[in-house]
Amino acid sequence: MHAVDIIRKKRDGGILTAEEIQYMIEGATAGSIPDYQIAAFCMAVYFQGMTSNETTALTLAMAQSGKTLDLSAIPGVKVDKHSTGGVADTTTLVVAPLVASLGVPVAKMSGRGLGHTGGTIDKLESIPGFRVDLESEEFIRQVTNLGISIIGQTAQLAPADGLIYALRDVTATVESIPLIASSIMSKKLAAGADAFVLDVKTGKGAFMKTLDDAVELAKTMVSIGAKSNRTTTALVTDMNQPLGMAVGNALEVREAILTLQNQGPKRLTAICIALAAEMILLAGVADTQEEAREQVEKQLQSGAGLRMLEKLIAAQGGDSKVVHDPTLLPQAKFTFAVKAPADGYIHGVDPMQIGVSAMRLGAGRETKDSPINLAVGIVLEREIGNPVKQGDTLAVVHADREEHISEAERSILAAFEIRPDKPEIPPLIYKRITSDDV
Amino acid sequence: MHAVDIIRKKRDGGILTAEEIQYMIEGATAGSIPDYQIAAFCMAVYFQGMTSNETTALTLAMAQSGKTLDLSAIPGVKVDKHSTGGVADTTTLVVAPLVASLGVPVAKMSGRGLGHTGGTIDKLESIPGFRVDLESEEFIRQVTNLGISIIGQTAQLAPADGLIYALRDVTATVESIPLIASSIMSKKLAAGADAFVLDVKTGKGAFMKTLDDAVELAKTMVSIGAKSNRTTTALVTDMNQPLGMAVGNALEVREAILTLQNQGPKRLTAICIALAAEMILLAGVADTQEEAREQVEKQLQSGAGLRMLEKLIAAQGGDSKVVHDPTLLPQAKFTFAVKAPADGYIHGVDPMQIGVSAMRLGAGRETKDSPINLAVGIVLEREIGNPVKQGDTLAVVHADREEHISEAERSILAAFEIRPDKPEIPPLIYKRITSDDV
Repeated sequence: MHAVDIIRKKRDGGILTAEEIQYMIEGATAGSIPDYQIAAFCMAVYFQGMTSNETTALTLAMAQSGKTLDLSAIPGVKVDKHSTGGVADTTTLVVAPLVASLGVPVAKMSGRGLGHTGGTIDKLESIPGFRVDLESEEFIRQVTNLGISIIGQTAQLAPADGLIYALRDVTATVESIPLIASSIMSKKLAAGADAFVLDVKTGKGAFMKTLDDAVELAKTMVSIGAKSNRTTTALVTDMNQPLGMAVGNALEVREAILTLQNQGPKRLTAICIALAAEMILLAGVADTQEEAREQVEKQLQSGAGLRMLEKLIAAQGGDSKVVHDPTLLPQAKFTFAVKAPADGYIHGVDPMQIGVSAMRLGAGRETKDSPINLAVGIVLEREIGNPVKQGDTLAVVHADREEHISEAERSILAAFEIRPDKPEIPPLIYKRITSDDV
Repeated sequence: MHAVDIIRKKRDGGILTAEEIQYMIEGATAGSIPDYQIAAFCMAVYFQGMTSNETTALTLAMAQSGKTLDLSAIPGVKVDKHSTGGVADTTTLVVAPLVASLGVPVAKMSGRGLGHTGGTIDKLESIPGFRVDLESEEFIRQVTNLGISIIGQTAQLAPADGLIYALRDVTATVESIPLIASSIMSKKLAAGADAFVLDVKTGKGAFMKTLDDAVELAKTMVSIGAKSNRTTTALVTDMNQPLGMAVGNALEVREAILTLQNQGPKRLTAICIALAAEMILLAGVADTQEEAREQVEKQLQSGAGLRMLEKLIAAQGGDSKVVHDPTLLPQAKFTFAVKAPADGYIHGVDPMQIGVSAMRLGAGRETKDSPINLAVGIVLEREIGNPVKQGDTLAVVHADREEHISEAERSILAAFEIRPDKPEIPPLIYKRITSDDV
């Protein structure tokens, strides 16, 4: 087998065998197939696509390129959750404790933020003392005893994905649905869960700008799950505006606490309930969607989810008093209210622009190695559909450096679209895709 | 400017500026743009193509990536000739002396053989003592004094092409007309001639299998020439069977001598006359195609071309007696006649198979660094359209190792297609493309 022949076959629209795909991925991992052949291969896949079988073979080859986590010692159905990345998307911090409070074991590996999107691990690190780097054994023990643990993704899981993603990033081959789907699912498979719930974002602030692309990505991932014997459900959800109201690490932890107190923003709460319900449905804890939903809502109302978050924080060395007193989280030096320049209705809150503004304040990373500031960010006070009067607060900037404020104000004002007429409000959940649909 | 943005622009079908193309080529040459970005770029070009202006910019950038030869000290219009590579294509050894004998200065850099095709430099090295590695000054002095010199291509000309070609070879991005055209023309431009005649082969033994592709490549190169102020004429010629009858280095030199004695194979002679006529037309030595043709035929009949070859060999240190006694050339130890297995007509002589058979005998290189044997090869005795009786000689194998003979026989027999009916004979020259056509 020769890499150049496999590249040529894909270039010419051929369908690769599982052996050919495995040969490429093993070679990429071992370094025996050079970067330039992998780059040309990715570009050929960009143009010619992959069948569902090819994408599954690629996913499995990447999942098996390094260590895989064995969660079999933990009793019960382990359900993992993944979001394709959005702005003010703090669902994991809400959904994971909610689901765990219903007896579904949550063994979750999460990532860090990059660009305009945040990452669960950064958010957790804003809780004083919280350790995200437990060893596998400690992680599995905690899930077995407490029912929940959230740790950082190690580079040992699906290392081929890490190598290939870094290459795709610099060779303009990121935007390929089979490559995106296999990248996500290979890490999920290596992390060892039995079933997956995927939140595929669509809209201005999402990687998938169009609904069609988001649905295709969702179907591709659900199909990979099904072919790998992991039941998978995907929700295609809106990212035409930030999901929650808080953007920034400590600010999002505070919002997650509020949400677990059943006082969170409506749209964030609704997505959290929907995702948690899908998870407990896959875990077999509920029999129908309605029943699943009711159980989740009950945990929200009773505060059981919040108590689980408190235990999670304590178990991983964090200061669990934050759930009762969020002022213990890092606080920015300055706050500054951005005011509406005119009367009208909010027609748009560009999530990309809000995410980038928060990143520029220091909440996110421009490149993988940028340092971040856990305290800073933006708290929105208006969303699409809200009426505003001139002078009303649209958002509050939390900054550590005074000179950041005026740039943040400018870009937040540019993100808000205010017009005199009433706007159409985008749906929150566009589509639900289960293994039966693919 | 960032390489990834340029790759993305081409990937999305954008038209690159000359500055963007130059940035990529300068980066590739300097090593500041890594191989994997160049590989992805080439694959994007493979799929999206390039406009004539882009291809010209690419050619110029590659031509300027290293040294360029300055032939301005040589009086007259310097016309270069290039063939896209075929089997039994010894035209340079015939055309260059013919044209020089008409007072057109020939400053020719040639390449070595690879795969199933031969190279002029290897053929010249089969002449005892012949030096192909003159320094530029010596080269220019000889052209000025004698009117002709043929030397090996240095890696200093268009080094970007060398780097990029090596990458294309292993990333399945060779078969792209803009990349092929710019690769050829960049080396031609760097070699300093004022005008070019191109022999673009088409058919089974050519790189361009279809006439359409060959015409497109020819037009692309003629257009690059025109846009670079080098008048260029291309002939699209047949490579559905070997052009001459001899395949192998010394054997081809012998055939070139025969042809300059006006006793060469008909098709080879016809192509040599056509190419030489185009060259003297571009040099302004003749005013019309007819006149050019007549002048060239006169030189063939008078033996003036052969005398020029004799002088060329002597000037470059070779044993010029070979032109009168080709037995002074290296001779293989064994000859073996391959006989027709049946009566009928020759319908095909697969040039690829003949070229590969000669390579396996040792006449050519499987990889760039393979050693070659200058004596061995194949001399065909039949071509498409000839009648044969069972037992007639189809070809004579010249081998140095007895154990090579039976494999050569097998593959030569497989190359010949003999059928009872009379075949159609393919045209020799399909199309003539001048700067007026593009």
